Amino acid sequence: MARQLRLGAFMRPASIHTGAWRYPGAWPDANFNFAHLKHLAQRLESARFDAFFMADHLAVLNMPVEALKRSHTVTSFEPFTLLSALSAVTEHIGLVATASTTFDAPYHVARRFASLDHLSGGRAGWNIVTTSNPDAALNFGLDDHMGHDERYRRAREFYDVVTGLWDSWADDAFIRDVESGLYFDPDKLHVLGHKSEYLSVRGPLNIARPVQGWPVIVQAGSSEPGRQLAAETAEAVFTAPPHLAEGRRFYADVKGRMARLGRDRDHMKILPAAFVVVGDSVEEAKAKRARLDSLVHYDSAIASLSIALGHDVSGFDPDGRLPPIPETNASKSGRERVLQLAESEGLTVRQLAQRLGGYAGLAFVGTPASIADEMAEWLESEGSDGFNVMFPYLPGGLDDFVDKVVPILQERGLFRREYEGRTLRENLGLPRPENRFFR
Amino acid sequence: MARQLRLGAFMRPASIHTGAWRYPGAWPDANFNFAHLKHLAQRLESARFDAFFMADHLAVLNMPVEALKRSHTVTSFEPFTLLSALSAVTEHIGLVATASTTFDAPYHVARRFASLDHLSGGRAGWNIVTTSNPDAALNFGLDDHMGHDERYRRAREFYDVVTGLWDSWADDAFIRDVESGLYFDPDKLHVLGHKSEYLSVRGPLNIARPVQGWPVIVQAGSSEPGRQLAAETAEAVFTAPPHLAEGRRFYADVKGRMARLGRDRDHMKILPAAFVVVGDSVEEAKAKRARLDSLVHYDSAIASLSIALGHDVSGFDPDGRLPPIPETNASKSGRERVLQLAESEGLTVRQLAQRLGGYAGLAFVGTPASIADEMAEWLESEGSDGFNVMFPYLPGGLDDFVDKVVPILQERGLFRREYEGRTLRENLGLPRPENRFFR
Repeated sequence: MARQLRLGAFMRPASIHTGAWRYPGAWPDANFNFAHLKHLAQRLESARFDAFFMADHLAVLNMPVEALKRSHTVTSFEPFTLLSALSAVTEHIGLVATASTTFDAPYHVARRFASLDHLSGGRAGWNIVTTSNPDAALNFGLDDHMGHDERYRRAREFYDVVTGLWDSWADDAFIRDVESGLYFDPDKLHVLGHKSEYLSVRGPLNIARPVQGWPVIVQAGSSEPGRQLAAETAEAVFTAPPHLAEGRRFYADVKGRMARLGRDRDHMKILPAAFVVVGDSVEEAKAKRARLDSLVHYDSAIASLSIALGHDVSGFDPDGRLPPIPETNASKSGRERVLQLAESEGLTVRQLAQRLGGYAGLAFVGTPASIADEMAEWLESEGSDGFNVMFPYLPGGLDDFVDKVVPILQERGLFRREYEGRTLRENLGLPRPENRFFR
Repeated sequence: MARQLRLGAFMRPASIHTGAWRYPGAWPDANFNFAHLKHLAQRLESARFDAFFMADHLAVLNMPVEALKRSHTVTSFEPFTLLSALSAVTEHIGLVATASTTFDAPYHVARRFASLDHLSGGRAGWNIVTTSNPDAALNFGLDDHMGHDERYRRAREFYDVVTGLWDSWADDAFIRDVESGLYFDPDKLHVLGHKSEYLSVRGPLNIARPVQGWPVIVQAGSSEPGRQLAAETAEAVFTAPPHLAEGRRFYADVKGRMARLGRDRDHMKILPAAFVVVGDSVEEAKAKRARLDSLVHYDSAIASLSIALGHDVSGFDPDGRLPPIPETNASKSGRERVLQLAESEGLTVRQLAQRLGGYAGLAFVGTPASIADEMAEWLESEGSDGFNVMFPYLPGGLDDFVDKVVPILQERGLFRREYEGRTLRENLGLPRPENRFFR
């Protein structure tokens, strides 16, 4: 069988796009409306998506209040509680939660993921993040945010501890022999006794080994230590390449690192974020996107553009083209990408600002067939193993993808018609880890 | 209307009693079988229970391995994940989770309870514990467990921070005006900026104010600082008095403290743990209990008895009466209670050991009518406002209570026939807290 796409849904209750809550037919109250989230998860499951991936932050996002007050991304359900609730109303779809190695304790993290894995019958995934947001540090009693390299060293140790705690019990430790009264075999219980640079955790975990052995390990950093951590540990990688060429470079780099570490390249699925807008024609799709972008309030949008360019652009004519901007301290590559975007799509200052204030990363905007073509090209040219799909607005943008794009992917043999296995790991084609203490 | 009982169910998946998993008809695999837990929660809801209260520990319980390997209490679901999953398959019953003020961060705790409250439509409760188990400390990087008084000072500050974070947003902060693009009113957002003895937390919380304002505050300590913390903060108190006289003393003490603090005595429900065994006759109920106790393995049981007496009793004739025991370092009151129990019920060494290894606290063992009588006596004599019911084995012990005792309580006007409100707070008759920053 040819390689198939793996599809995760990268979700916020009212979409990632900051204008989405204002789109016709949207659910502005979705952030705290479980019925809506349940509906979305069940629709994704009906389309055989691999996973529901819940975005997360450990602080109210640091934006100017003019932008903040217009964004639905300011609050939403906490991922563990939401995904646990969704586990009770779904049967197949994977449930991926973010947990920070900087601001949480490995015993809690190991326990909650193991519990979610048991509750869901083996559908949990852990998105390991080191949390780069300095506002999060202030919510956890730290005035100085830990440095980047230190965060990654701690992350690696944290991963070792969490996976070690998951291995506290052999898979067959629990005998439950009613007759003799023996509940478990004490020879199949391991006390971790970890003490190293950052962490001291005795164990054992007070929860049986997860159904999947370990929940699927997901990673999202793209820095040098992030790529190395991914190559060492990750089974799915969330990336955000701006175009196919960059996606291919990342793919080759990280899979190459894996191979050098002796890992099988197929045991990691690289899934770039893809913002997908579906129309019956390319023009209709573009018009939907333009309408959505136009719902980003200009006051928020212009702040995003000024930050990206490192130059106050609020005095420019919103409906004119961007005049030449002097060089600044802003990231050069980021700046050039913005200027190129304005040029290539012929955007006005307003349109450019609203694009950046909404979503300006990799996007597939077109017909079901053209989107399927683009996805196939990424897969075939080793730009990715699939995607983390981001829907432009909800529920409409998700319905379009599920109803129109998925059937074409299935017809072309690029996506499953039925789930292959019982667990997230089985559906992704990943092996079940051996217990390091009981082989 | 006369005062009515409030009934919580204090749950472990296979009951609190360590022999329960071996009882005929029990579910030995309940610890990781969500279908069973869902069934139990739905049955409790059909009987109009106030709350499902999930027992919890942050370590494998510290017992001799001979006892540990025979106990189903060694592992089970983590409470936040379990209760969130149950929130999706129930509509009315309250969901009370334990969270430690010693081993967790207030930002996480505030977020998870707020999220559970939104998911459940206002049914969350927070059982505040300071975690006295030194084995838990070792799982969280602390070699020296924090002292008792210090734990309570930190608990009080932790409570202030968590409730302050819940008040980050005014109840009407989220306007979501699609037309103007204003998602929330920035004048209705409060940044906590807490810095004090133990904690430094900036805020705001990235989640809207809970449906209940605050989830219901539950407390379980009975020490001097525990009682004071309860009088200051708790809305429900979990206690374990061995008999009515002690229950009345505790009730008068804590409600008196509340009154001195200017709080309304009705704004706290005192709910002792009650182990309830139902029979068609008193003899049948006693026989059920004796059978259940007999399922505690003698090796485990004798270890419990030796610890309680501070004396190795493993050499005694299991089927004889307890001979005189020399005074030891063991708690004097605990020791006397054990000796008195052996005397009053005429228990052999084996029976006494198995009682202690199973459950030896307050128990109502009798017919539905006699149990209703006892519950009514506690309520009327101000020994309690209701109970946290512990079922001896599952599902049978729960079925007996729901099918036989609850209807009698309802007939006598001692328990509701329908839920009074939408939220746990409304059902318990507790007021919704004002937002301290937005009145």
